[in-house]
Amino acid sequence: MAHILTVTLNPALDLSVETPRLALGEVNRTANTRLEPAGKGINVARVLARLGHTVTVTGLLGEANAAPFERLFEAEGLRDRFLRIPGQNRINVKIAESDGRLTDLNGTGTPVPDTALEPLQRRLASELAGCDAVVIGGSLPPGLPASGLARLVQQAGDAGIPVWLDTSGDALTAGVAARPFALKPNAEELSEWAGHQLPDLASVRSAARRLQAGGVAQVIVSLGADGVLWLAPSGTFQAQVPPVRAVSTVCAGDTLLAAMLHGMLKQWPAPEVLRFATALSAECVRHVGVGHPDAADLPTLLQLTRVQRGPGHNNTGEMPR
Amino acid sequence: MAHILTVTLNPALDLSVETPRLALGEVNRTANTRLEPAGKGINVARVLARLGHTVTVTGLLGEANAAPFERLFEAEGLRDRFLRIPGQNRINVKIAESDGRLTDLNGTGTPVPDTALEPLQRRLASELAGCDAVVIGGSLPPGLPASGLARLVQQAGDAGIPVWLDTSGDALTAGVAARPFALKPNAEELSEWAGHQLPDLASVRSAARRLQAGGVAQVIVSLGADGVLWLAPSGTFQAQVPPVRAVSTVCAGDTLLAAMLHGMLKQWPAPEVLRFATALSAECVRHVGVGHPDAADLPTLLQLTRVQRGPGHNNTGEMPR
Repeated sequence: MAHILTVTLNPALDLSVETPRLALGEVNRTANTRLEPAGKGINVARVLARLGHTVTVTGLLGEANAAPFERLFEAEGLRDRFLRIPGQNRINVKIAESDGRLTDLNGTGTPVPDTALEPLQRRLASELAGCDAVVIGGSLPPGLPASGLARLVQQAGDAGIPVWLDTSGDALTAGVAARPFALKPNAEELSEWAGHQLPDLASVRSAARRLQAGGVAQVIVSLGADGVLWLAPSGTFQAQVPPVRAVSTVCAGDTLLAAMLHGMLKQWPAPEVLRFATALSAECVRHVGVGHPDAADLPTLLQLTRVQRGPGHNNTGEMPR
Repeated sequence: MAHILTVTLNPALDLSVETPRLALGEVNRTANTRLEPAGKGINVARVLARLGHTVTVTGLLGEANAAPFERLFEAEGLRDRFLRIPGQNRINVKIAESDGRLTDLNGTGTPVPDTALEPLQRRLASELAGCDAVVIGGSLPPGLPASGLARLVQQAGDAGIPVWLDTSGDALTAGVAARPFALKPNAEELSEWAGHQLPDLASVRSAARRLQAGGVAQVIVSLGADGVLWLAPSGTFQAQVPPVRAVSTVCAGDTLLAAMLHGMLKQWPAPEVLRFATALSAECVRHVGVGHPDAADLPTLLQLTRVQRGPGHNNTGEMPR
């Protein structure tokens, strides 16, 4: 198995609450309140660890409420190399009503000092050695500019480690310029990067091709219920998701990214990489939290996941070393 | 100064978030997120400690997220004698929009085992010795019946310690039957206890009199912007609040109760007890958190607080010893 480093620069605690119907301006009663550490890099790390990899997690962690993160890292067997910063990690509230409506209240994050980048670069330098891949995921906290993210992508790339980037907005634009190995935008993030609406699959594919032409080897676009589009150097693949009853799509993209990385590290044939990742992502949306690779019916989900390939493909989604 | 014990059976962490305008079913951006320990007994304890008393806090505390409480107890100089129970303390969300609308999402609390009452009674027995008053505040967690609360009230009363009770619903009804020394319902809680609407001050007074007739010496009814009504054994007092710009009324009732207890322990004349408590409660609503007894303009607020008394009063709101 591989050794993977994930970087989360703006972690959050997700507070999920359920209420029958949210009445604004009133006192509402909630049930099933859950507070759980979140952050793309951390979610990806959880899936990779469940798939048997050795995973180190790093980034910036507010020390005032670090305890739930530390408990999670220990429970999931993640090696904790987060830098502690003063202050609290943000808490994002997810309100689920009985009719399925979901309302998010997302904080911007704990402001970090201008000087935060340098210790991050030092930490990255010391942790990159021996890694097979680096995943950098999520938004940037106030005070950390997009150019700082680009420098981290560059640093890992210069060290010869494939960088998987999953972010949005300015951070995505700046990150792309540093040529990560792989990107996993969703349709909305891709549309924001492209600067215009992407009304159909053809326009999504066209925008993804522009990313690839800019030097990103692997572009994986998650399209929700419409499946996954993967532009690899060897060609284009598309997956349709198996029918599942969606409960929470919160970790679907992170599960997809982790499973794509897993399949590539295993050097599976490209269609099998995408089939596995799409099926595990579908497994994930059936419940709260990241995907369970040991789900009893994963073989059935794999069977029900349809993968199509375009012309001129070879069989591997190989990773450079 | 006195030694006071406060009991909080269903503590919470309050998560306050601000958002310009809450769009349901969307992703909303928040600012100024704050996570703070709450619970009536704990809030009352903070005010009493600021007023110079020795305060012990007890009750049931979920061990999984006890750290913010422990930090608060240490920072505010409260003696921590909470029983730890498995699980997380609930998190209540308070969403403030720019137009001033406040939406609350309150959890029911961590379910406690049937066996929780016995260790609570033992803890109460060991902590009651030497106390000048006991404050029991807040709701009951799932699994702790109202009859259990009544037994705690009874136990403290039997030990000769005046019990100040601030709760609602079934817990209030059961607690009243155990004859606490003082009650502090708000108009809504009193109305729920009475079983019908209380449309005017006369009906509020009448309901409060029935509580008093049932064996509760002191009934303090907080009426929000309409002030405070106090039925003491010596007669009825009424206070009008000074004009303040209300920012948060979350801790107003707890501040009122603590300040009433303080004034009575000091054996101030009844009108001065009520004036002080009403003024400190008004001080409290100007900001988030409990009242600040050291606010520079407290003398002005005291001057602006008008207290009226009914016929047949004497001058003290004395406490039995």
